[in-house]
Amino acid sequence: MGDELARIAALRAIYGDPGEGIALGIGDDAAVTREGAVWSVDAAIEGVHFRRAWIGRGARWEDVGYRAAVAALSDLAAMGARPRAMLSAIALPASEDDEVLLAIARGTAEAARAHGAPVIGGNLARAGEISITTTVIGALPEGASPLTRAGGRAGDAIWVSGACGAAALGIAALEAGRGGEESAAWAVRRFLAPSPRFEVAARALGIARAAIDVSDGLAHDLAQLCEASGVGAELDLAALPIDDAMRALAASLGVDAVELALGGGDDYELVLALPADASIEGATRVGTLTASRALRARDPSGALRALDPRGFDHFRP
Amino acid sequence: MGDELARIAALRAIYGDPGEGIALGIGDDAAVTREGAVWSVDAAIEGVHFRRAWIGRGARWEDVGYRAAVAALSDLAAMGARPRAMLSAIALPASEDDEVLLAIARGTAEAARAHGAPVIGGNLARAGEISITTTVIGALPEGASPLTRAGGRAGDAIWVSGACGAAALGIAALEAGRGGEESAAWAVRRFLAPSPRFEVAARALGIARAAIDVSDGLAHDLAQLCEASGVGAELDLAALPIDDAMRALAASLGVDAVELALGGGDDYELVLALPADASIEGATRVGTLTASRALRARDPSGALRALDPRGFDHFRP
Repeated sequence: MGDELARIAALRAIYGDPGEGIALGIGDDAAVTREGAVWSVDAAIEGVHFRRAWIGRGARWEDVGYRAAVAALSDLAAMGARPRAMLSAIALPASEDDEVLLAIARGTAEAARAHGAPVIGGNLARAGEISITTTVIGALPEGASPLTRAGGRAGDAIWVSGACGAAALGIAALEAGRGGEESAAWAVRRFLAPSPRFEVAARALGIARAAIDVSDGLAHDLAQLCEASGVGAELDLAALPIDDAMRALAASLGVDAVELALGGGDDYELVLALPADASIEGATRVGTLTASRALRARDPSGALRALDPRGFDHFRP
Repeated sequence: MGDELARIAALRAIYGDPGEGIALGIGDDAAVTREGAVWSVDAAIEGVHFRRAWIGRGARWEDVGYRAAVAALSDLAAMGARPRAMLSAIALPASEDDEVLLAIARGTAEAARAHGAPVIGGNLARAGEISITTTVIGALPEGASPLTRAGGRAGDAIWVSGACGAAALGIAALEAGRGGEESAAWAVRRFLAPSPRFEVAARALGIARAAIDVSDGLAHDLAQLCEASGVGAELDLAALPIDDAMRALAASLGVDAVELALGGGDDYELVLALPADASIEGATRVGTLTASRALRARDPSGALRALDPRGFDHFRP
């Protein structure tokens, strides 16, 4: 099996039909029951989602706990659900100081308070590496249908909330050992403390035909929305929400802001498919869904090129 | 901080009051909402909860997936809740063959079907070691109050479902490289495929004053029930449900069946505090809750000794 989508399809076949109590099972950002309860789970793992080497060089253990929580909460926003509660399962090596555990928990608690999703349970276990697996529980507003990945149609406009690539710039600064520098601090915050887009999602309910959150890169997650909707996409690179500060920091780090916007993950912005004449406050129109299944990007020069759907696929070698 | 209870108390203080929508938060077997929804999460981690060396020597990867699911489901039984659905977050090294992932999923799917808790979502991630973190979602029967750890009173009888120590015998056989032997097969199955005690729990609703499931050893989990209830306990060792087959296998493995019943974890039986004149089918009376906070055990000779509350505490060095 080649990629994450194929693995998820194989797992869905193994797990089978969840039955009529479940409106939406495996394959979207979260599962949804007939009554509108929304559930999702996300893992943050040392060496994969964060590095110990960052601590004290632009990041704290509190940030690791905060980010683990908001990354999971973002899946609720991507469904149009409001957060309600969280469970936090933490695993740590036996050699780890208790203060690391408590710092992670303080960060998670801060995210819980910021988004109205109290931590009501969890698990503690020993392990060879630190991991934080967060279950989030949300609810759709009364009578609302969830925002799924599957409803996009050819001709719909593609919108994205906020800005794309800032979190990847933050990671680039941390990886370069420059996460503590003042010029990079804002981008590092965007990585460590992204804001799940609950307000944008609330506006999108009843308007957007499809939605996904950007955890693995705009191109990657847009490709997942297109796959689920049976369409392709044409992105207008000149329209991507990348500001001058991002371009300047990218230049200083020797990276390309557009490539980071397309391929870098961790922004937790929302990608929305809207009817052509609709708009959403807090989001930017960046392209169009197409009947052709191809993913393409229009350069600022006007040239059309194939868009690489790879982003941060945890299962790519 | 000395132990797991202290860590959980510290985490509860950090996470704070979950608010009025939550009837029961951190500190019991599961969290419960005002409407009677019940949520819990449990992790199964390579090298801590299972060993790669067991595979092919009495265990399969399917068993690892099955056991991860039923260990989590047992927390619902301990609350008197019926299972409804699961989320399965799986992390594996990049070097792992996809067949391992799919085998784990097949085992989890089998447990899901056996207990009416379909897998409706999850997460896939790369990691340095294999882990399976299972979120379980259940519901209390209409109008029922959950079975908590905190309602036990001095004078209540202590009951335990099924048999204690069989799973630990299975682990001992696996660890000795004898998990594939016919004489040990039944005990290995008790470890790999325990049955969450949903039927016993259903009978206990409205009768039992307190309940906990035995994941970390009878003595350890009874101590947690006593701590939450503000009482002590006196166990009658001669009354422990240990049969001749268990004694014979224990002798052959060079271990003590009573010590395994007290200290071995992983049985997923229920410990119940019942009014002195009550009884529950499928469970055995093994002792009494006491006003004295001490934990004691009466030997078959009639002598009373202090009971070591240690069992499988993941955070004990």
